[in-house]
Amino acid sequence: MAKNIYDFDEGRREMAGLLGGKGAGLAEMTRMGLPVPPGFTVTTEACRSYLLTGAEPAGLRAELERHLALLERAAGRRLGDPHAPLLLSVRSGARYSMPGMMETVLDIGLTDATVRGLAETGGGKRFAYDSYRRLLQMYGSTVLGLHRGLFDSALTRLKTARGLADDRVLTADDLADLVEVYKAVIRSAAGEDFPQDPREQLYRSVQAVFRSWNSERARLYRRREHIPDDLGTAVNVQMMVFGNHGPRSGTGVAFTRDPATGRPGMYGDYLAGAQGEDVVSGVRDAVPLAALEELDPAAYRALRGYLALLETHYRDLCDVEFTIDDGTLWMLQTRIGKRTAEAAFRIAAQLADEGLITEDEALARVTGEQLGRLLFPRFADSVGRRPLAHGVPASPGAAIGAAVFDSAEAARRAAAGEKVVLVRRETTPDDLPGMVAAQAVLTSRGGKTSHAAVVARGMGKVCVCGAEGLTVDPARRRLTTPDGTVVAEGDVISVDGTAGTVHLGALALRTSPVAAYLEAGTDAGDIAADDLVRAVDRLLRHADGLRRMEVRANADTPEDAARARRFGARGIGLCRTEHMFLGERRRLVEAMILARSDAERRQALKALLPLQRADFTGILAAMDGLPVTVRLLDPPLHEFLPDRTALTARLTAAEARGETPEPHDAELLAAVESMHEVNPMLGLRGVRLALVAPGLVAMQVRALAEAVVDRRRAGGDPRAEIMVPLVASVTELRLVKAEIRRVLAEVWAATGTDVDLPVGTMIELPRAALTAGRIAGEAEFFSYGTNDLTQTVWGMSRDDVEAEFFPAYVARGVFDASPFETLDRDGVGRMVEIATAEGRETRPGLVTGVCGEHGGDPASVRFFDRAGLDYVSCSPFRVPVARLEAARARLDDAHRNTGDTR
Amino acid sequence: MAKNIYDFDEGRREMAGLLGGKGAGLAEMTRMGLPVPPGFTVTTEACRSYLLTGAEPAGLRAELERHLALLERAAGRRLGDPHAPLLLSVRSGARYSMPGMMETVLDIGLTDATVRGLAETGGGKRFAYDSYRRLLQMYGSTVLGLHRGLFDSALTRLKTARGLADDRVLTADDLADLVEVYKAVIRSAAGEDFPQDPREQLYRSVQAVFRSWNSERARLYRRREHIPDDLGTAVNVQMMVFGNHGPRSGTGVAFTRDPATGRPGMYGDYLAGAQGEDVVSGVRDAVPLAALEELDPAAYRALRGYLALLETHYRDLCDVEFTIDDGTLWMLQTRIGKRTAEAAFRIAAQLADEGLITEDEALARVTGEQLGRLLFPRFADSVGRRPLAHGVPASPGAAIGAAVFDSAEAARRAAAGEKVVLVRRETTPDDLPGMVAAQAVLTSRGGKTSHAAVVARGMGKVCVCGAEGLTVDPARRRLTTPDGTVVAEGDVISVDGTAGTVHLGALALRTSPVAAYLEAGTDAGDIAADDLVRAVDRLLRHADGLRRMEVRANADTPEDAARARRFGARGIGLCRTEHMFLGERRRLVEAMILARSDAERRQALKALLPLQRADFTGILAAMDGLPVTVRLLDPPLHEFLPDRTALTARLTAAEARGETPEPHDAELLAAVESMHEVNPMLGLRGVRLALVAPGLVAMQVRALAEAVVDRRRAGGDPRAEIMVPLVASVTELRLVKAEIRRVLAEVWAATGTDVDLPVGTMIELPRAALTAGRIAGEAEFFSYGTNDLTQTVWGMSRDDVEAEFFPAYVARGVFDASPFETLDRDGVGRMVEIATAEGRETRPGLVTGVCGEHGGDPASVRFFDRAGLDYVSCSPFRVPVARLEAARARLDDAHRNTGDTR
Repeated sequence: MAKNIYDFDEGRREMAGLLGGKGAGLAEMTRMGLPVPPGFTVTTEACRSYLLTGAEPAGLRAELERHLALLERAAGRRLGDPHAPLLLSVRSGARYSMPGMMETVLDIGLTDATVRGLAETGGGKRFAYDSYRRLLQMYGSTVLGLHRGLFDSALTRLKTARGLADDRVLTADDLADLVEVYKAVIRSAAGEDFPQDPREQLYRSVQAVFRSWNSERARLYRRREHIPDDLGTAVNVQMMVFGNHGPRSGTGVAFTRDPATGRPGMYGDYLAGAQGEDVVSGVRDAVPLAALEELDPAAYRALRGYLALLETHYRDLCDVEFTIDDGTLWMLQTRIGKRTAEAAFRIAAQLADEGLITEDEALARVTGEQLGRLLFPRFADSVGRRPLAHGVPASPGAAIGAAVFDSAEAARRAAAGEKVVLVRRETTPDDLPGMVAAQAVLTSRGGKTSHAAVVARGMGKVCVCGAEGLTVDPARRRLTTPDGTVVAEGDVISVDGTAGTVHLGALALRTSPVAAYLEAGTDAGDIAADDLVRAVDRLLRHADGLRRMEVRANADTPEDAARARRFGARGIGLCRTEHMFLGERRRLVEAMILARSDAERRQALKALLPLQRADFTGILAAMDGLPVTVRLLDPPLHEFLPDRTALTARLTAAEARGETPEPHDAELLAAVESMHEVNPMLGLRGVRLALVAPGLVAMQVRALAEAVVDRRRAGGDPRAEIMVPLVASVTELRLVKAEIRRVLAEVWAATGTDVDLPVGTMIELPRAALTAGRIAGEAEFFSYGTNDLTQTVWGMSRDDVEAEFFPAYVARGVFDASPFETLDRDGVGRMVEIATAEGRETRPGLVTGVCGEHGGDPASVRFFDRAGLDYVSCSPFRVPVARLEAARARLDDAHRNTGDTR
Repeated sequence: MAKNIYDFDEGRREMAGLLGGKGAGLAEMTRMGLPVPPGFTVTTEACRSYLLTGAEPAGLRAELERHLALLERAAGRRLGDPHAPLLLSVRSGARYSMPGMMETVLDIGLTDATVRGLAETGGGKRFAYDSYRRLLQMYGSTVLGLHRGLFDSALTRLKTARGLADDRVLTADDLADLVEVYKAVIRSAAGEDFPQDPREQLYRSVQAVFRSWNSERARLYRRREHIPDDLGTAVNVQMMVFGNHGPRSGTGVAFTRDPATGRPGMYGDYLAGAQGEDVVSGVRDAVPLAALEELDPAAYRALRGYLALLETHYRDLCDVEFTIDDGTLWMLQTRIGKRTAEAAFRIAAQLADEGLITEDEALARVTGEQLGRLLFPRFADSVGRRPLAHGVPASPGAAIGAAVFDSAEAARRAAAGEKVVLVRRETTPDDLPGMVAAQAVLTSRGGKTSHAAVVARGMGKVCVCGAEGLTVDPARRRLTTPDGTVVAEGDVISVDGTAGTVHLGALALRTSPVAAYLEAGTDAGDIAADDLVRAVDRLLRHADGLRRMEVRANADTPEDAARARRFGARGIGLCRTEHMFLGERRRLVEAMILARSDAERRQALKALLPLQRADFTGILAAMDGLPVTVRLLDPPLHEFLPDRTALTARLTAAEARGETPEPHDAELLAAVESMHEVNPMLGLRGVRLALVAPGLVAMQVRALAEAVVDRRRAGGDPRAEIMVPLVASVTELRLVKAEIRRVLAEVWAATGTDVDLPVGTMIELPRAALTAGRIAGEAEFFSYGTNDLTQTVWGMSRDDVEAEFFPAYVARGVFDASPFETLDRDGVGRMVEIATAEGRETRPGLVTGVCGEHGGDPASVRFFDRAGLDYVSCSPFRVPVARLEAARARLDDAHRNTGDTR
């Protein structure tokens, strides 16, 4: 027969799976000799058995009796003793903290008989009846399932009858009357009497706590927090101690260091004359812990000593709950304390400095997500201010600027030195110049994977999107909030991309010292004096020494490339060329598309060539000595033409007004019509375009090759690589590679410089992954385009699905997280694994990387490390995050290998 | 050292890999004792060695000498003998026939010395010099690589100089002069003299034939015919015989039966006084073989005897080439003869009747593709008529009707009993009623996988699409051809979906007796008397007994279901419900989509329910006792609303004219805008729609369940199954299944009839295949939607890619065949294999089928059989094809197991 109950002195901290977090903590403190009220823990196994069978596991009652006897001996009181009754608390305690989600019953042991004994031996009649009515209320709602409102309204009726306003002024007699009222409520609503047998109270409370594992709110919480549903909760039965036991009593919470900043020194709150529940529910005002030094110096000193002991023992920030019962300090809970991103870095570095933990451990204590948060500026005084609107926090950080309503205006004002925020209903590739010019982007439509969000994150620009309360009116150049506030063009607004809020006017901005330091690189000077900066720097350096994977950046301009390099990128994993075909150059692209003859087409391409060559030269210079992977033009050409619906509407309207359409417009419409695609994502793009659009590949390859020659001649060390997108079959790659080789040979012949650039491919279609063995015969490297791979593996267009059904899908549990943010291991991940294994079978040592947005996502980075990839590539601002996570992935790996499952 | 040469009496027919098809045939005939001019074969291995190393394999010369000596002995003449010279032919002969693609050199052995001997001993001076100039010409072009035009223009110059018009009137002296002219051509163009050593002629001719394996045209031909490039060709060296050796000479081709009809009796052509080359090149007119009976009764009888011998020996239709040299019959080639579809069936059945082959062998001799061709009507007299236009032969058969230019008109005229052809630029789901009403569909845009093509094939309707020469003007209700012919509405046209042509007026139509018989089923009566029908019937019956896989049909109406059943379908593998939401019902669907309240939505759904129930009742009745797999509504709802661009243009134009838009139009536009998707194929459809569109699943399930109850009450045996489309994750299926179960339980409760229908899923997304193990935990069956799976595995939208880059992709060798027509085994096939294996690991015995269009494609059916699927489902008209191919797949399997690689 399994052991269902562990006395606190039988357990250990490592037994959290069986005893729950709280039970394991109480056991550990008991073993350490800290003052813990005596008690025991009913195991999670017993709970699971109860939930499965609907009955207590065999032998549980007998064990309860045995441990209760031990408890009574330790407490010196007995349950149900009418003279000096023992009172018990029954608290839930699952493996992972689920604060407030499950049930608690306090003051068990009070009956009509014992309440009098408590009054006489333990603190007076008022205290005793107050405790009794608390028990009745908790038991009624938790064990009997009565609505809490029944007790509240009974209390209100009584107070109204007596003309009272506050429950603190209820007298002992009032409370004794209230006890009778509550008993009557229980009798009439539950159809049974409140049990006068304390053991029945105890047994049924334990069962009620078991059941509370599956309450609606607990299940919702678990789903949100990704806690498995089959763990069950432990139940802690413990002697009651009272913080409401007179002036020398009280209760509090304490941290071993400041959880907000990470700075050393005990930190917490204390509430005199109150029970723990009162602190948690926030009904009374607490004072800073320092005040306790005045109120009860002995207890304060003892607490400080215990905290020091705990931190040394747990080798991490701990928080505790404690109660002082008539001058005696009792420790009621301890656990590893939650902390802010800032605190996480400071504490990890401090503990390593103090020699308490190793540098590997310090690294394990911080996350890339936390580092990400430290890199963005923040608004110093936004708390409590009512924003103009809430939206999706699509790209974090804080920015201030004048609202502008189109791309051209944004570019114009920015050129004149003004800071602007681009406000659009939603953005399109046409808005790129405006997005580049703006401090932040604000849209009223679209979610985290809308164009605005994706592009802004790529640029490291602040973005709030889908602020649906806002009516954006680009024609009248203004936006309107639901309460009628109008923001006109030029009005200054503040955009908080971390919180997803927009404020009128300029809030105070606090820049990130960490970002400033990382970007400054070696000449950081003053900034490096900041202890947070030092902590980050120390952990990042350790990470760089530890990680196996390289980190590259997705960068399309010399500026981005330079920034990425300062942030630690060791090359460019994805240089998208489509941005080189926008803006002023669009006219040339249009000319190329509309060309009626080879000569016209060649002319347009010839004009594009030097422009693109200059782009490449700049990027290669910024990344001198490091690989720069250039992707051939990927999007369908019609993306460079006007929108079909808008153009059709414009021309039809003109016709309706009797106007003659311009020949160019008619020509454009014909081209747009003939190039229209029902599903452009699955259409004529990538390598398909390379194979059918004459001259396009040759122009791009020539521009790149000539840029390489230019850089070599200038004494540089350019390391360009050519990447072919959207390959589904090795034949496609073979054909386009032949053309690439031809052009490279021409440039070599013309310049006398060997430009034999490596040619590789994106693996971004399921078929590429499934035939990777053959593709590796031609491809000199693989780069996983996990964005498109996710779209095709799921059959889901990121442009369409997020707004439409992502919310429903997350709510209904189909996704834990968007597969566009965290890699879907079972589907997309399996494709990556297959392709890597089979690609390397053909070409041992094949270099593989990832250039989708997942390259900057911590969970995904860990997956890529395990899958054996050589590098991840992400937006410049995510580079430090990826550096950290690539190292943490190694730690995970080490832990897994030693059998630690965490 | 490998043996490089086989004398004809050393080889066998099974050695085609080593000796080539021609060599193996010559060897076999030699072994059978037929009169074959003596000779030997240089192996394909020798050729491969030569191509690889650029030099003859070691020992080849010595072997040539040895076999040449044997040949001389058999022929009774010696090479280079100035008095009675032996002449040789050197011919290519690869494993697979590549007619005219490689080289031949005839009359080897002629020199300035031997030509005189030939004149004296073998047929006169004219014949000798004619042969010499033929040798010079062939040697010059084939061995020395000179342009054929050099010889042609030299001949023209000579004839002009002599005032001659035809080469037949050249005298012996003219030809002797021409020989000198040709020798001079060779000397000046090749820089060497024509070799007067016959052995050098022989050696170099053999090498030239080796090299011709890799000529441009040979390589192109192999790519088109899917012949591997690494086989090489054998070379046959043989004593020359002459069909141009006077009046008792001639040459011909003969078949053992009529290759056009399959009817018994020798069949062929004969050309008196000519060489074989003259027959092939078609420069002279041949006479039917029967004429030979008059010309040379002995040779005729001998030939007839040899053919009978060959057919019995080869147990199949054979064709031969023969030459009569001065009264002596020589057999120059034999092989298995090509035949029409009709002949294939007749011959297979006849040979089985004659006991020459088994029924399994008979089945292996016909293909589903041939059966498919027999099912369609044909135009009896289209040959030689100039069509109005050529297009893509998208759905085969022949049909005649009045041209109509919109769906409503087609329906109206058809209802009045008129036969119509629907002519559109391209079709959309709105054209469905018109397509149903029409005899044929003709479009000017789109390819084999356009909407028109796919739907027409599904309906078994004739379709020519992408007839780009036609200008279709629906507004003026007419079409115009490039030469200005105008076809107005009501003009009768004839559409040949097999040839891809359109003719003006009504051509004579021949219906298919096979289709009539199959559709009539048991009461076929007279039709069964047709020997073609009997042949098909016999082989199909054998196939039904042999195959492992079931054949179901894709059918959406009671009519299609009934027809499919008559064609032998054992159930419906895919019943698409979207067709039940079109036509008149569109109004209700629109009301459901635009509903502003639950009540409005419920009302629309309630009105749809009885209509859909009636559809289901009819289908279940038609398939009584057999499974009917109903797919929940799949397409995005915006497909039921007007086109966005058209609607926007219409409203903008109205506005420009100062008109006030109708409230309904404005409402529609708002809905269309809000539901617009960039990539609808990857958007809100399938199970996603089921999960977010309230009431939609419930209505469909209720309609089906109530139809089942109705059929049960009527004494029927309805076997409905519910199929959930576009599942990517088991959670989606679990959620929608819960709703299905709930509705089924309600119907059960309300009617007292148990309607616990099986619920399965489409596997049509890569992620579904990759997580099939988990999905099988919920799915009671799998149906592979290989159309969508192909789209997502390749990342290719069938709506977009075909017209845009399929032609380029086929031309450049990326595809052998469209992956939408023949399953891509490496990508899509691998997904099917993974899903089947892992699904069955979870649920042993899981029923799996395929319902994509590949279910009717022979090559794909074989793959599905090997992959272990339980059934294929295809359009009703493809059911007999699938029945045949499913059985042939078993034969393949049997052959593979016995090591026959064919």
